[in-house]
Amino acid sequence: MKNTAVYPGSFDPPTNGHLDVIARASRLFPRLIVAVTDNQNKTPTHTLEERLLMLRGITKNIPGVSVEIFSGLLVNYLKKKNARVIIRGLRAVSDFEYEFQLALMNRKLSPSIETVFLMPDEKYVYLSSSMVNEVARLGGSVDCFVPPLVRAQVIKKCRHSNP
Amino acid sequence: MKNTAVYPGSFDPPTNGHLDVIARASRLFPRLIVAVTDNQNKTPTHTLEERLLMLRGITKNIPGVSVEIFSGLLVNYLKKKNARVIIRGLRAVSDFEYEFQLALMNRKLSPSIETVFLMPDEKYVYLSSSMVNEVARLGGSVDCFVPPLVRAQVIKKCRHSNP
Amino acid sequence: MKNTAVYPGSFDPPTNGHLDVIARASRLFPRLIVAVTDNQNKTPTHTLEERLLMLRGITKNIPGVSVEIFSGLLVNYLKKKNARVIIRGLRAVSDFEYEFQLALMNRKLSPSIETVFLMPDEKYVYLSSSMVNEVARLGGSVDCFVPPLVRAQVIKKCRHSNP
Amino acid sequence: MKNTAVYPGSFDPPTNGHLDVIARASRLFPRLIVAVTDNQNKTPTHTLEERLLMLRGITKNIPGVSVEIFSGLLVNYLKKKNARVIIRGLRAVSDFEYEFQLALMNRKLSPSIETVFLMPDEKYVYLSSSMVNEVARLGGSVDCFVPPLVRAQVIKKCRHSNP
Amino acid sequence: MKNTAVYPGSFDPPTNGHLDVIARASRLFPRLIVAVTDNQNKTPTHTLEERLLMLRGITKNIPGVSVEIFSGLLVNYLKKKNARVIIRGLRAVSDFEYEFQLALMNRKLSPSIETVFLMPDEKYVYLSSSMVNEVARLGGSVDCFVPPLVRAQVIKKCRHSNP
Amino acid sequence: MKNTAVYPGSFDPPTNGHLDVIARASRLFPRLIVAVTDNQNKTPTHTLEERLLMLRGITKNIPGVSVEIFSGLLVNYLKKKNARVIIRGLRAVSDFEYEFQLALMNRKLSPSIETVFLMPDEKYVYLSSSMVNEVARLGGSVDCFVPPLVRAQVIKKCRHSNP
Repeated sequence: MKNTAVYPGSFDPPTNGHLDVIARASRLFPRLIVAVTDNQNKTPTHTLEERLLMLRGITKNIPGVSVEIFSGLLVNYLKKKNARVIIRGLRAVSDFEYEFQLALMNRKLSPSIETVFLMPDEKYVYLSSSMVNEVARLGGSVDCFVPPLVRAQVIKKCRHSNP
Repeated sequence: MKNTAVYPGSFDPPTNGHLDVIARASRLFPRLIVAVTDNQNKTPTHTLEERLLMLRGITKNIPGVSVEIFSGLLVNYLKKKNARVIIRGLRAVSDFEYEFQLALMNRKLSPSIETVFLMPDEKYVYLSSSMVNEVARLGGSVDCFVPPLVRAQVIKKCRHSNP
Repeated sequence: MKNTAVYPGSFDPPTNGHLDVIARASRLFPRLIVAVTDNQNKTPTHTLEERLLMLRGITKNIPGVSVEIFSGLLVNYLKKKNARVIIRGLRAVSDFEYEFQLALMNRKLSPSIETVFLMPDEKYVYLSSSMVNEVARLGGSVDCFVPPLVRAQVIKKCRHSNP
Repeated sequence: MKNTAVYPGSFDPPTNGHLDVIARASRLFPRLIVAVTDNQNKTPTHTLEERLLMLRGITKNIPGVSVEIFSGLLVNYLKKKNARVIIRGLRAVSDFEYEFQLALMNRKLSPSIETVFLMPDEKYVYLSSSMVNEVARLGGSVDCFVPPLVRAQVIKKCRHSNP
Repeated sequence: MKNTAVYPGSFDPPTNGHLDVIARASRLFPRLIVAVTDNQNKTPTHTLEERLLMLRGITKNIPGVSVEIFSGLLVNYLKKKNARVIIRGLRAVSDFEYEFQLALMNRKLSPSIETVFLMPDEKYVYLSSSMVNEVARLGGSVDCFVPPLVRAQVIKKCRHSNP
Repeated sequence: MKNTAVYPGSFDPPTNGHLDVIARASRLFPRLIVAVTDNQNKTPTHTLEERLLMLRGITKNIPGVSVEIFSGLLVNYLKKKNARVIIRGLRAVSDFEYEFQLALMNRKLSPSIETVFLMPDEKYVYLSSSMVNEVARLGGSVDCFVPPLVRAQVIKKCRHSNP
């Protein structure tokens, strides 16, 4: 069971920071499931299907990584997958608080599941998906922030409003 | 006047963390008014009436505690109630900043009113109302997070969308 | 180029804290452009036009300050204005994180542009535009928080719902 | 028992920020003991006796306040004094973490004792005893930071090295 | 190589918080080396030998855990041990900053080594070794904070000054 | 007067992060004085003279930069130099709090002096002088952290204890 870890997130879109965490996690755990949340509360910029395709595209050469959609309670999803480890990337202080809250909530819901925090490269420390969408929407270059495959999708999706 | 304190909040729903702060405050002040805000900006998960009933139910055995609805400016409400102390629970860093901002704003609006910060039990340090609603909505157990009476209401309210 | 700095923001409405930062920046840079963002994602309380008028009113006696509306990418706006310095006020921890994220994003988009952080007077450390609107909406006095000209506009705009 | 609160600290020296917290606490609790710690681990700038005299001098007109020296465990001192409330001032984030740690430690050692956090005036939010000593040592004016009586003592003590 | 993790620290003394992290890490990695630092800069309360004995005593029933002393650069120690993972516990914000600094330093010194952060039970979130020593020195009970074996050593070592 | 800025610090030793801030500040202000503090309270690793030489060496090609030693109160030093701007680099949260405290203290001591905060490249966000000395002392490479000239001095000074 220790062999499978789940990296959950909305990945709207996946950034170089997410990719960095995926690469690090995949070196620690033989099987890593990147789990895209179908969060019905928020309106995402990119559809579930688009996020799935982007993540599959950018992780296809990283051994042991698969990408799936999940809905419902994260800890239930882990049990179904026979996984016991949740991966989270830690960036800055606000992250930290929220991540702790989430991790403690999950631990209460399922004490045998452990959350493992990894630190992305410091050059991604302040990168966020929403800023990537915003920069693209305003016509800026997102080349430094996302892989080329994601860049194409982000531009297609975000730029039409500011042509 | 020092005998009456007001503990304002949205309590959407009240959690074990809120209840812990209420119990602590009631040991410090002979009269404690738990004041449920009628915030017209946000769409709450539970109606004002439901929150009032939950709070009255879970505090009915704590001496000196009453529960009321208030709207308008908090400092004006305190004056009307002849109260001079605002109670706030402090959990984590993000809380802390926001609570300071609020307390300083209230102090500017009414310098004679003092905000008193209490620390809930550390086991509630990362508990939030919105996470409780979210866990219930996703079908998870909220038994560790809220009193039984609140649990029943939260399940009734949140779970219907994921049956 | 070092002579022109841009202080961007939504200024919805401008507060004494913003005015304090404007005064400090104007003593450092011969030309200061206060740039009001036309953010299409958020619904502002005050229209772009109203914010422009308020800012022009309260800064008319500060030498070297002009007020403009901008849309699009901030770094592109700076280039167009031949400016190389972004001014940002730093208040509290949550600010700090967000401001760093923004500044690093802008640096990536245009490495020659520098973000300069100034500290407002500590008496404005916890002041925010949204709280000003909220206090006015609830019928409280905003005299301590905004210049008289802004106060008039805020009351006109926010108070009608709670007469 | 709820009538007596203890405000512990090293007060090396007492600042306007401490005095502000003392005044606020004395309005909440009929009896307030300012308890100067005889911390044998640190080398203070001002002797216990000097700190006691300064605190007595600056609080002599605040009703209900007494100043005492204490050593040993804080919670034991409170029990001896029949007090159940510890007062702490909260300034900034680093404070906040340390204060939480201390308060939780004291709660574990004696669950019936409550720590109450008060917020000093924002103009003292970044004031510290060690900075006061340092400024005086370097020949700067400490008039804004401490009451006149403390100022005299700080100058006598700290300035001799830079005459 | 992924099978061995190193949990470095001064453990002066080991607390229930450390023990909690050790237990969690040992469930993730087949081999865990608890590495006690021989830091020549600080004067520890407990000798290296005492800390080694305490750690061995309290971990003797946790499978896969060994305790060793190390000096020199942590990343060199890991290479010698054929380990590629550093374990660190994350408690509060101040921790977080320092831990990030350390982790990034180690990553620069050896990019193939990954730091994995685990979150201790929230009831240990504010526990520190130095507070344990201080409480014992002042005659307080440390039963809630350390295992019995550590308690005996801490009392022997710290209490003689306050008999 | 706005043309001269002072960047004070202990620079024990100067790191790539300091150098990055110096370069940024020198692009904003025609004259920049790097002011090495002669802090009599701390025992530095490198002597004042050594730090002066290192700083002069690494800044000799940056136009407008001079390096000096200063003692006494920083604001008095600025007045003597006819400078009105203090430069500070901001790295992480703990920094931020301390820097604010310092800046507010200096503002109280001399209201006409402004502190300007710059953000070093994110790759230096977690770099500190003390860690550089520590890594060198333990025999690690400091090539990523300091310029070559500083590296030579740090190795000479720190490594002799671990040959």
